[in-house]
Amino acid sequence: MAFAPLQNDLFLRSLRGEVTERSPAWLMRQAGRYLPEYNATRAKAGDFMRLCKTPELACEVTLQPIDRYPLDAAILFSDILTIPDALGLGLHFVQGEGPRFARAIEHEADVAALPTIDVEESLGYVAQAVTTIRHALGGRVPLIGFSGSPWTLACYMVTGGSSGDDFLKARNWVYQRPDLMLSLIGRLEALVIDYCTMQIRAGAQAIQLFDSWGGLLAHGSFERFSLASLRRITAALQNAHPDVPVIVFVKGGGGWLERIASTRAQALGLDWSVPLSEAATRLGPGVCLQGNLDPAVLLSRPEAIEAEVRRLFEDLRGFNETAHVFNLGHGISQFTPPEHVAVLLEAVAQASQRRSLPQTTHPR
Amino acid sequence: MAFAPLQNDLFLRSLRGEVTERSPAWLMRQAGRYLPEYNATRAKAGDFMRLCKTPELACEVTLQPIDRYPLDAAILFSDILTIPDALGLGLHFVQGEGPRFARAIEHEADVAALPTIDVEESLGYVAQAVTTIRHALGGRVPLIGFSGSPWTLACYMVTGGSSGDDFLKARNWVYQRPDLMLSLIGRLEALVIDYCTMQIRAGAQAIQLFDSWGGLLAHGSFERFSLASLRRITAALQNAHPDVPVIVFVKGGGGWLERIASTRAQALGLDWSVPLSEAATRLGPGVCLQGNLDPAVLLSRPEAIEAEVRRLFEDLRGFNETAHVFNLGHGISQFTPPEHVAVLLEAVAQASQRRSLPQTTHPR
Repeated sequence: MAFAPLQNDLFLRSLRGEVTERSPAWLMRQAGRYLPEYNATRAKAGDFMRLCKTPELACEVTLQPIDRYPLDAAILFSDILTIPDALGLGLHFVQGEGPRFARAIEHEADVAALPTIDVEESLGYVAQAVTTIRHALGGRVPLIGFSGSPWTLACYMVTGGSSGDDFLKARNWVYQRPDLMLSLIGRLEALVIDYCTMQIRAGAQAIQLFDSWGGLLAHGSFERFSLASLRRITAALQNAHPDVPVIVFVKGGGGWLERIASTRAQALGLDWSVPLSEAATRLGPGVCLQGNLDPAVLLSRPEAIEAEVRRLFEDLRGFNETAHVFNLGHGISQFTPPEHVAVLLEAVAQASQRRSLPQTTHPR
Repeated sequence: MAFAPLQNDLFLRSLRGEVTERSPAWLMRQAGRYLPEYNATRAKAGDFMRLCKTPELACEVTLQPIDRYPLDAAILFSDILTIPDALGLGLHFVQGEGPRFARAIEHEADVAALPTIDVEESLGYVAQAVTTIRHALGGRVPLIGFSGSPWTLACYMVTGGSSGDDFLKARNWVYQRPDLMLSLIGRLEALVIDYCTMQIRAGAQAIQLFDSWGGLLAHGSFERFSLASLRRITAALQNAHPDVPVIVFVKGGGGWLERIASTRAQALGLDWSVPLSEAATRLGPGVCLQGNLDPAVLLSRPEAIEAEVRRLFEDLRGFNETAHVFNLGHGISQFTPPEHVAVLLEAVAQASQRRSLPQTTHPR
């Protein structure tokens, strides 16, 4: 496929480990409910899954934040639960309650009954969306593809949707039926590899793996039930497509950064529990850090937003060999005033400028 | 007040730093919905707050797990939100939805309008419950009193109840109105000190401070918005009552253990994100560790429960100078089969035996 040449490669250079002239920025869930134009498109689509499954509409909402703000990367608009949906679980969204499946995976027979699917066939709409978006972007910024991690997908599948008790049922499977949980995770791992590979072939220029619920696992279970599969997925993608960087984001994984870095992902996403300086100290310069402002900051006054951004980059000062991508520590809140995102990105551009120059140029 | 002499002092000795002949055990939320006798008493009470506010009923449910299991400590049955309730916020519980306040603290005027209360007067029912329970226990095991931390109480007060978005509003106050949040926390801090002091005078033999939502704060905000008040509360209680140990439990605080230990609390409660061996290594032997089994373990087969308990104590082996109290990493689930708690406690008694003796006496 021929796409227009990339005009802004800050993000990809950072993921490859380069300390760039400023930190590139994108925001998790940057296309979303805080944007009136998103809500208009979603209303037009009727429901959320139709928005995901209609490549033109997915493309439209993916580009909305790119048109509005000076972001350095676009991310495919989709949902992390497309794979379970393709497995026939019947994904739908209940207003104000998050995702729900028509059928949960509750018993051994439910795992056995999961159909064998071909992602190109069942999830071809995602590939179409990726290609459509790449063309529409015309090389302005790179496009990120993504997938939920096997453990995170399994959490939702076993629970039947989102959870009010930290996915107690899924955590219980870890102790009650570790064999069954690993079998489910193995099935999902193969699908995640195929799914990400499909996105790369369709035009995705980087992949982010979201382990949104990895932090709920006990210290002794994280390796076996999530990290091992993240490691295999990362390796499989890097082997087949060495030019496409992988970002691993484990929410609540601040205590396990060294273990997460052992996936050899090009970048780690960080929530706001760990300062960037601590992550940089613990991990050394070999891995790009992505993060990590608390999304709650965006609900406050512009001056507070600017102050928190300055604080973040002050903290990173001195780590002249650690590549950095600016992001939030979690998805942007639907209650964010859209004009605050402009304030944020301007502050990031200012505060992150020329980190790579000698320190003497930065008055303290 | 004259109470019967204490017959089982394992728990208090452990909190004072002694490595005891076995690890004493209690379980957060040990009096609760998983017990049929609790549900019967709650039905009799009519609603949850009447259960908390009627000393005889609070005493009845506090003793239910003590009568049923060989636990080494009782904990006052109450709710962490009694203080906001006493401040006139109108606490009630919506079936399946958790706590709700009739009035949230949304504006500066709401903070200013909080009444000055005398805890002995407004929360005297808690003191009565403590004394009633102490008498009913007759010295079988010690009684733990408790309070929510100021930050955790503020989270609920600002939100108007439990939260589906990690208390975004409260986190936003940290950035938007730090002065107002600190003013609210200051008010609560004084009340928490009075409240715990009242419980100690009424007969509580140890105090646990629950910072259930401390882990939601950004790394740079935790000290100012939660830890500082935990430190002052701990010091105030220890100064006035040096014989009553304080346990500080910060859910999600695994990355900050050294900072939490700086409160000089006698014990730290641990969730399941950090192995006990890691906590013991990082903190040294000066502080008792309390925890930290994932409550999801209790929903699995007895053999799995036993295996996880063995694993926990294997991990602790070699730390012969670190005092330990067994507990879960969070409250027990309402879905726990009551007979599994018996299995758990038997396994803990077995596996923790004589940790303090030379290692050669433990066949591997």
